[in-house]
Amino acid sequence: MSYEVRSINEECGVFGVWGHPQAANVTYFGLHSLQHRGQEGAGIVSNDEGKLYGHRDLGLLSEVFKDPRKLAALSGQAAIGHVRYATAGNGSVDNIQPFLFKFYDQSIGLAHNGNLTNARSLRTSLEKDGAIFHSNSDTEILMHLIRRSNEETFLDRLKEALAEVKGGFAYLLLTEDSMVAALDPNGFRPLAIGQMKNGAYVITSETCALEGIGARFVRDVLPGEIVIINDEGYTIEQYTTETQLAICSMEYIYFARPDSDIAGINVHTARKNMGRRLAAEAPIDADMVVGVPNSSLSAASGYAEASGIPYEIGLVKNQYVARTFIQPTPELREQGVRMKLSAVRGVVEGKKIIMVDDSIVRGTTSRRIVNLLKEAGAKEVHVRIASPPLKYPCFYGIDIQTRKELIAANHSIEEIRECIGADSLDFLSEEGLIDAIGLQKDAPYSGLCMAYFNGDYPTPLYDYEEKYQESLKEKVSFF
Amino acid sequence: MSYEVRSINEECGVFGVWGHPQAANVTYFGLHSLQHRGQEGAGIVSNDEGKLYGHRDLGLLSEVFKDPRKLAALSGQAAIGHVRYATAGNGSVDNIQPFLFKFYDQSIGLAHNGNLTNARSLRTSLEKDGAIFHSNSDTEILMHLIRRSNEETFLDRLKEALAEVKGGFAYLLLTEDSMVAALDPNGFRPLAIGQMKNGAYVITSETCALEGIGARFVRDVLPGEIVIINDEGYTIEQYTTETQLAICSMEYIYFARPDSDIAGINVHTARKNMGRRLAAEAPIDADMVVGVPNSSLSAASGYAEASGIPYEIGLVKNQYVARTFIQPTPELREQGVRMKLSAVRGVVEGKKIIMVDDSIVRGTTSRRIVNLLKEAGAKEVHVRIASPPLKYPCFYGIDIQTRKELIAANHSIEEIRECIGADSLDFLSEEGLIDAIGLQKDAPYSGLCMAYFNGDYPTPLYDYEEKYQESLKEKVSFF
Amino acid sequence: MSYEVRSINEECGVFGVWGHPQAANVTYFGLHSLQHRGQEGAGIVSNDEGKLYGHRDLGLLSEVFKDPRKLAALSGQAAIGHVRYATAGNGSVDNIQPFLFKFYDQSIGLAHNGNLTNARSLRTSLEKDGAIFHSNSDTEILMHLIRRSNEETFLDRLKEALAEVKGGFAYLLLTEDSMVAALDPNGFRPLAIGQMKNGAYVITSETCALEGIGARFVRDVLPGEIVIINDEGYTIEQYTTETQLAICSMEYIYFARPDSDIAGINVHTARKNMGRRLAAEAPIDADMVVGVPNSSLSAASGYAEASGIPYEIGLVKNQYVARTFIQPTPELREQGVRMKLSAVRGVVEGKKIIMVDDSIVRGTTSRRIVNLLKEAGAKEVHVRIASPPLKYPCFYGIDIQTRKELIAANHSIEEIRECIGADSLDFLSEEGLIDAIGLQKDAPYSGLCMAYFNGDYPTPLYDYEEKYQESLKEKVSFF
Amino acid sequence: MSYEVRSINEECGVFGVWGHPQAANVTYFGLHSLQHRGQEGAGIVSNDEGKLYGHRDLGLLSEVFKDPRKLAALSGQAAIGHVRYATAGNGSVDNIQPFLFKFYDQSIGLAHNGNLTNARSLRTSLEKDGAIFHSNSDTEILMHLIRRSNEETFLDRLKEALAEVKGGFAYLLLTEDSMVAALDPNGFRPLAIGQMKNGAYVITSETCALEGIGARFVRDVLPGEIVIINDEGYTIEQYTTETQLAICSMEYIYFARPDSDIAGINVHTARKNMGRRLAAEAPIDADMVVGVPNSSLSAASGYAEASGIPYEIGLVKNQYVARTFIQPTPELREQGVRMKLSAVRGVVEGKKIIMVDDSIVRGTTSRRIVNLLKEAGAKEVHVRIASPPLKYPCFYGIDIQTRKELIAANHSIEEIRECIGADSLDFLSEEGLIDAIGLQKDAPYSGLCMAYFNGDYPTPLYDYEEKYQESLKEKVSFF
Repeated sequence: MSYEVRSINEECGVFGVWGHPQAANVTYFGLHSLQHRGQEGAGIVSNDEGKLYGHRDLGLLSEVFKDPRKLAALSGQAAIGHVRYATAGNGSVDNIQPFLFKFYDQSIGLAHNGNLTNARSLRTSLEKDGAIFHSNSDTEILMHLIRRSNEETFLDRLKEALAEVKGGFAYLLLTEDSMVAALDPNGFRPLAIGQMKNGAYVITSETCALEGIGARFVRDVLPGEIVIINDEGYTIEQYTTETQLAICSMEYIYFARPDSDIAGINVHTARKNMGRRLAAEAPIDADMVVGVPNSSLSAASGYAEASGIPYEIGLVKNQYVARTFIQPTPELREQGVRMKLSAVRGVVEGKKIIMVDDSIVRGTTSRRIVNLLKEAGAKEVHVRIASPPLKYPCFYGIDIQTRKELIAANHSIEEIRECIGADSLDFLSEEGLIDAIGLQKDAPYSGLCMAYFNGDYPTPLYDYEEKYQESLKEKVSFF
Repeated sequence: MSYEVRSINEECGVFGVWGHPQAANVTYFGLHSLQHRGQEGAGIVSNDEGKLYGHRDLGLLSEVFKDPRKLAALSGQAAIGHVRYATAGNGSVDNIQPFLFKFYDQSIGLAHNGNLTNARSLRTSLEKDGAIFHSNSDTEILMHLIRRSNEETFLDRLKEALAEVKGGFAYLLLTEDSMVAALDPNGFRPLAIGQMKNGAYVITSETCALEGIGARFVRDVLPGEIVIINDEGYTIEQYTTETQLAICSMEYIYFARPDSDIAGINVHTARKNMGRRLAAEAPIDADMVVGVPNSSLSAASGYAEASGIPYEIGLVKNQYVARTFIQPTPELREQGVRMKLSAVRGVVEGKKIIMVDDSIVRGTTSRRIVNLLKEAGAKEVHVRIASPPLKYPCFYGIDIQTRKELIAANHSIEEIRECIGADSLDFLSEEGLIDAIGLQKDAPYSGLCMAYFNGDYPTPLYDYEEKYQESLKEKVSFF
Repeated sequence: MSYEVRSINEECGVFGVWGHPQAANVTYFGLHSLQHRGQEGAGIVSNDEGKLYGHRDLGLLSEVFKDPRKLAALSGQAAIGHVRYATAGNGSVDNIQPFLFKFYDQSIGLAHNGNLTNARSLRTSLEKDGAIFHSNSDTEILMHLIRRSNEETFLDRLKEALAEVKGGFAYLLLTEDSMVAALDPNGFRPLAIGQMKNGAYVITSETCALEGIGARFVRDVLPGEIVIINDEGYTIEQYTTETQLAICSMEYIYFARPDSDIAGINVHTARKNMGRRLAAEAPIDADMVVGVPNSSLSAASGYAEASGIPYEIGLVKNQYVARTFIQPTPELREQGVRMKLSAVRGVVEGKKIIMVDDSIVRGTTSRRIVNLLKEAGAKEVHVRIASPPLKYPCFYGIDIQTRKELIAANHSIEEIRECIGADSLDFLSEEGLIDAIGLQKDAPYSGLCMAYFNGDYPTPLYDYEEKYQESLKEKVSFF
Repeated sequence: MSYEVRSINEECGVFGVWGHPQAANVTYFGLHSLQHRGQEGAGIVSNDEGKLYGHRDLGLLSEVFKDPRKLAALSGQAAIGHVRYATAGNGSVDNIQPFLFKFYDQSIGLAHNGNLTNARSLRTSLEKDGAIFHSNSDTEILMHLIRRSNEETFLDRLKEALAEVKGGFAYLLLTEDSMVAALDPNGFRPLAIGQMKNGAYVITSETCALEGIGARFVRDVLPGEIVIINDEGYTIEQYTTETQLAICSMEYIYFARPDSDIAGINVHTARKNMGRRLAAEAPIDADMVVGVPNSSLSAASGYAEASGIPYEIGLVKNQYVARTFIQPTPELREQGVRMKLSAVRGVVEGKKIIMVDDSIVRGTTSRRIVNLLKEAGAKEVHVRIASPPLKYPCFYGIDIQTRKELIAANHSIEEIRECIGADSLDFLSEEGLIDAIGLQKDAPYSGLCMAYFNGDYPTPLYDYEEKYQESLKEKVSFF
């Protein structure tokens, strides 16, 4: 049984700027630095003297704005943008954000990163009350709640709406006179404020986008906060005080860019520390340490440094994307796998390898990489994973599939080792991970969401609860 | 004065297979592994029972064959392919290879990697004799020479033609009954033979393409050799015995993929050795070693290992390509530069950095990267280049521009250091480079072409000689 | 003052089929025959066993479904489609129909041809009540009204909704178990039922689409009717009895295809009769009758036949569409005009011409055509218009602009003649038009809407009333 | 047996201008008026101060130059262009013209309309002599002949080359200092000189392009003439005096646009006369005359006028092009046919129809149209063809297929009538055609090529002779 109730807001990236004459261009640059957070689609909404203009489409940012006139048309001094994560089988432009709503009395742009846990309930309830949804994204829900609120001001309506949505969310809105950001009470998703040299304020999912536009980091958006940016500067309000920091640990482990800082912790440094700790927790004698490019290179270098074993480039990632349609025979299909990654025979042949990877989901990829190394002549391949075993799904916006698809939810470490064909296998411990990131000593799990590893979800699961409970009773064999 | 006589065959990649039922697909996979050798255009010519079919177009391989029917139409058991290097300002599909020639008595596909030094003379002479060229590539020259030869057999005609072309070349031809490869007398460009599991033979510019299709390495093509592959297997002939190995050192330094072996030397290992040697030749005390991604990561890890200074990811390359048109203001243009590469503030802030790069051409890029690191808070940036200073252009197929554009041809190391804003700057010595690669002890420069560093060209320069001599008298200030 | 309150539902075409295994293909064929009713965009929604699938995009039908997989994906035995009229400056796919709504309890496809006169009021009122619109088409209004209705059955909800919308409309809906069509109480827009050889029922804006798919005409949909088609066949209900036939006379004059029958009257025949009557009302001696292709050819042949003056092809329309961007100089711009239409010098040189056209809006086109004929050597050009002068805008779905843009609303016939440079000018009388069409003797204007000519609108104007009254006081000079 | 030796230069259109600041734009406009002569591809080569620039691609003119920058890049005061006829199965851009040749000593653009009868011999002979062809168009042959000529001047080389090519050709060349046109000794293809208001001279395949750009007709290019246009004006030379006018009669019958004059005869008028004569030669009593749109409308109106029978629009052509891929079932395939043309039931039902068409090739289309009319209720359909039966192929540039595909080459008129399902069938006589066009009384066939009707080819057939003779012995049944 899978969690079909999940709507399709997974990892994404949001970026916005207020107060720059080239706001759409700055947003384009910002989104470019966030492209790793979503490749299915992209869009920008700009505000030119209170009039809102938008463009969005399927594809990478550079494809969506291939025609330079598309970007040039988005005039104005403020803009928000969004990159959307590729989820299988949903290729409609209707779901690409930011959404641009035009009412008789106002216009609003809306972008969202995260996943609501009560989306299904809210949507059904709204539809029963006459609401019409135009996408199967749950981002629209917030707008319906805002428009149906009886509060006086836009801000109060937004606060009322935010109190109703549950789960993980980082919202970015553009109105006729302001840019507004809001973060969920657990701060599952990263969100930061920066400032450009001309004084313009920016909001970004990751700080790596600041460096790209020459902006300085101002502060993180904290759980339960609303940030209002307009021509006067920025102000911060709290829409709830019942907050509890639980930053998604997967952002540190593999999702965020290494040059981002999340909650003051540099991601590369966190990963390197995971590698160091892993070397201490799961040492082994070998000729070299090889990281799986690109997300595991930091951890691998940490492992190498801590262990004193040389760090080598034993796997090379092809930087060009191949189409997958050319797979007429099983033989060629297997070769297709090699198009992404190849083992460096001249480096690994006859050697004992420590292969460091960030995580194992189904085990399929790990098995293929181990196999690549062995075919290229590696004598032994010892797999070390720089995070604990993934056993539970994520309901707050990371695309970690159902328990059925998690090998560690269904098998022991020894079984996994056998499945992937490694000579040995070990994982980082939960404590190791928490210590390596080193976030907030006094908070539960030091302020991290560790639910994927231990099932301890920081919030009720609402619409997902029932099926989740059922799923705990099931087991699937991967052999 | 620039070398406008240079025609437009620069670095490229060739790949071919004979004897596989999915020959065009195998070639697609092979070219995918060679995509780094050329991104301007790509093409494939197949041979189905003696009938030749072709498709070529501008763009990356995946764009050229976006429509799966294009590849499916290239039926047959043999195919050759080509990826073409992007040279500014020439966007015509006419130059994209392989060329497919159809005569009343035969059909031939032709692909070429390299640059001829007597192309202009040959072309003018052929045109005076009535020849019509359809591209401004000099690849066509070989076909005119073949078709005008009075020799009896195709092979003898080809040999006669090969005796007339000078410079660097790796040719790959597909006829109705064979696939033929030929390498210049100096072996400037890499070219190797491999064999697939089903027995099919392949020819590839780099061995990294072998791993990608599950083929084993058979042997390198040697200077002055012709390889003929047909249903009987492969045979090798020598079209000249006046050969002298002079492999392009830039292939080892930055151009080839780290998982390729050239003349038996693994490229990553060679680079790591360059880094080690550089650490010995140009040591300095610092907090960390940072490589410029991606081509300098091997050298940087070698430097780190040899020096004992930690290897860190202080620079991150954006894996997505941004369009460059969005640069309306100088301010945004400068930001555009940052879209490719960004410094990791959380890593480099307050630190003394050894920044390892593979080479310096104009110095512009180095200056920008040093600047990125300093803006991100680096206390000191010590630049170490894992190759000697580039002072002379290449006429054999590498896109190293005229002396006018080489900063090291016009300035001292101290002047370059000042120009790029580094706290110190040093280069690998010529001996260091030769030793690090460790090719053939007894050959001049151990079998490498070192002309870019010392002006000692292994062959006469023919059409380029006059302007080259003039250029030696000129100097240009980069300040 | 213009009528900016007008929303953007202008002339369009709808087509649907229930009960054919290739429903989407049949709909594609049907829409192809209706392409003249709208070229801005097109779309199809299909029903496969109760599941609805849709695709829509900007462009001609053949462009929207260029990729054959787009159409193939629309499986099922029922489908509705829409072609949308090109209105300047609105290039968003959001407005392209059919809309496909997915609710927790049902899915509905919706397409619309016509224009509501109370759209602005309804929309504002709905938005005040929390409704969110996703297009600036007023088609969405009907869906909001349906979803907010408290009636029990879908049909009763639809009836309630239809009672609230005013103006001209032909709706086509696809639900999970039926296809439903509804026509406004005046029957402004044509809508017909047909039947294919396999028994499948179709709904189409014009009967010309029946011939194209080998279907037979069953009956017209009448004012105030709802047609429900499902697996049982079709049934007809009346949602109002306050009906009054007022078919848009412009459909007969220029908009519909000559091979369509509207209310039992063939369009070509009606036009030929207009030409005959025009010859009687406004005779003149000349060498030949020339029609402006393509819409005036029927009327021209009628005029020729009735007058005994030869019918000649003195104007040729280029069947290929030229891009209009290539107009760098005024001189070339004027030439650009000639790209659509050219005069046949060999036919018209030295001749007295009767030029028959269907209507005059601004007069600009007429002036250009007269000029083309004169430049090609025509001695005299006598313009005869096969409809009365256009003096009033349309609010029911025909794109006849504001009074400000109607030359006949602002100038006398003699002034118009001078403006277009004709040697004489005459129009068909209102009685002539009514008689030529010969619809229903006993109804007002024989069942035609004649408002464009006499300002006698068959319904209140609602949201347009105020500005319309103001506009009556204004006059604009076209000189 | 078919005539596979035929190369692929069929009907095409050429246009050029010398002396206009917007030469490429003027050429675009000119080609737009010639688009009916070829829809497979288009191209333009311009001359800016002696430098030649070109762009060509597959598709309609408006598609080839969809990106306005493509046209803008073709700067200069002179340009030539070409539209290419769609021949099945050859979709390579290599064949799209004008060709642009760049030699060390000159650059030349070349476009061609026509078909050579000795192309195969010339090509084989040139290839034996070392020539390399890059397209399978025979247009390249002229350039090889020019470049291999030993004459002194370009003009003398061109004359020498023209003396070697046989068949039908209208060449248009653009050199660095002139535009040159040349016509074959029989003048099979139309070619005219015009002059724009600014004095610029133009060359065009048809005069309809003159009207489109506001140019006046100067004179026709005559058989055996070379026209040289440069900054001094135009001069005309004769490359041969052995000329014999034999204008392709199919240009008058269906290929040229009705607003063109060929050899002083207006095409519409010629067609109308064919219709009049046909009425006299093959009268029949009926209710109406219906022309098959668009090419037969002139002849139909002539028939109607001469016979006194009303001219009606009984067939409507859909002006939009439908894709043909959507034909999954035979039933839908038949419906697909109707997408191009539909019968007007309201006009033809219950009527006796005279259906006028310009020609019958295979008979398939005629059968379908007769069927459409009958299905729409026509009581009788009497087919009248405004040209004689097509019995012999064309070797001079018109795409009339082999004898095997010509129904009239294999069957009697009565058999054809039966095949197409007409109630009666008649053709215009050869004398009738010649008289109706009324070209030059004293020349053989009054200066027309009548070979398609009587096999009397005005020239030897060279490479086609042998297979042609064989084909005369064969007969194929169409039943």
